[in-house]
Amino acid sequence: MKYLDEINALIESLSKYQGVGPKTAERLAINTVTKWNNEEIDNFINALVDIKKLKRCKYCGNITKDDVCEICNSRSNKKIMVIEDVKDLFAIEKCEAYDGVYHILDGVINYQAGITPLDLNLEPLFSRAKEADEIIIATNPSIEGEITAQYIKEMLKDEKCNVTRIAYGLPVGGNLEYADSKTLEKALEGRRNIK
Amino acid sequence: MKYLDEINALIESLSKYQGVGPKTAERLAINTVTKWNNEEIDNFINALVDIKKLKRCKYCGNITKDDVCEICNSRSNKKIMVIEDVKDLFAIEKCEAYDGVYHILDGVINYQAGITPLDLNLEPLFSRAKEADEIIIATNPSIEGEITAQYIKEMLKDEKCNVTRIAYGLPVGGNLEYADSKTLEKALEGRRNIK
Repeated sequence: MKYLDEINALIESLSKYQGVGPKTAERLAINTVTKWNNEEIDNFINALVDIKKLKRCKYCGNITKDDVCEICNSRSNKKIMVIEDVKDLFAIEKCEAYDGVYHILDGVINYQAGITPLDLNLEPLFSRAKEADEIIIATNPSIEGEITAQYIKEMLKDEKCNVTRIAYGLPVGGNLEYADSKTLEKALEGRRNIK
Repeated sequence: MKYLDEINALIESLSKYQGVGPKTAERLAINTVTKWNNEEIDNFINALVDIKKLKRCKYCGNITKDDVCEICNSRSNKKIMVIEDVKDLFAIEKCEAYDGVYHILDGVINYQAGITPLDLNLEPLFSRAKEADEIIIATNPSIEGEITAQYIKEMLKDEKCNVTRIAYGLPVGGNLEYADSKTLEKALEGRRNIK
């Protein structure tokens, strides 16, 4: 007795999510069959169809309907904040203490997990940096975040722009997206040059 | 700055899953946009479209393509095993020590969580019990599982069928679907009448 192919296909799709193991995917798939009505499944399908229409901003990597995102379209690109993830952009925007543009890396350098600088959205940053006055590195205060910050600082050492690091107002080992707005604001105010 | 409507729609669908909170749903939705290619999203959509074709067996509640599932179609209904969840059916089948049919409750009685006997797939069991020789109650060895077992025993007290409980070979507080086949087999062998 095995699961029907239909269920296995759904388990396979769900286990593609980072952090969703096979047992969880199984639970979610069975949950879809036993607890969701057709309208709910249709809404889910439509949401996925619509998601396919979204793009990444060609400058910063933000999620957008057009080629260039709202933020890159409306703000000066003299100040660029480098972040790990799209979710971090929303966390920073929420604290209303930043008026520059962003650059989303889509990860951090993690040699142990096989993530090298080549796997990150770094190339476009180096060309954008030529026009910028300041690059604020706001990767998470983790070992990987620090390594990535140092790497970027090193790569930008010949550029005239100032390279700063968001201040440690965040608890070390914590996660940027869960910080409250006040802490994020303090961390932003206290940014410093990388020595 | 807020998430695009497309992302919010996906977050809403994902948070319908039991055990997926708003933060996790947000992470999964962003993950879909930033890490999945169109083919992967299409596979996911197709899996959901196919899932809608599946039905619940009109006798036992198993997942099936037809009105009656393979197991109900091919086995005697003299022995009925009552289980909480579809996943438990696959766990029991895997140990190859049971040749009767199943009855899936789709949950357990949990008054604290607002789940009463009326919310479970119980009515059809009581009519099926009239034809049966034995009802084996294999709800999980948890407080809620025990309460549900007692409730069913009580409701069936006027029927001539024997009502048994799967043996405690399982660690108390544990979860049926994670048990190994040998333990499940032992538990099945040691089933006893409810006093």
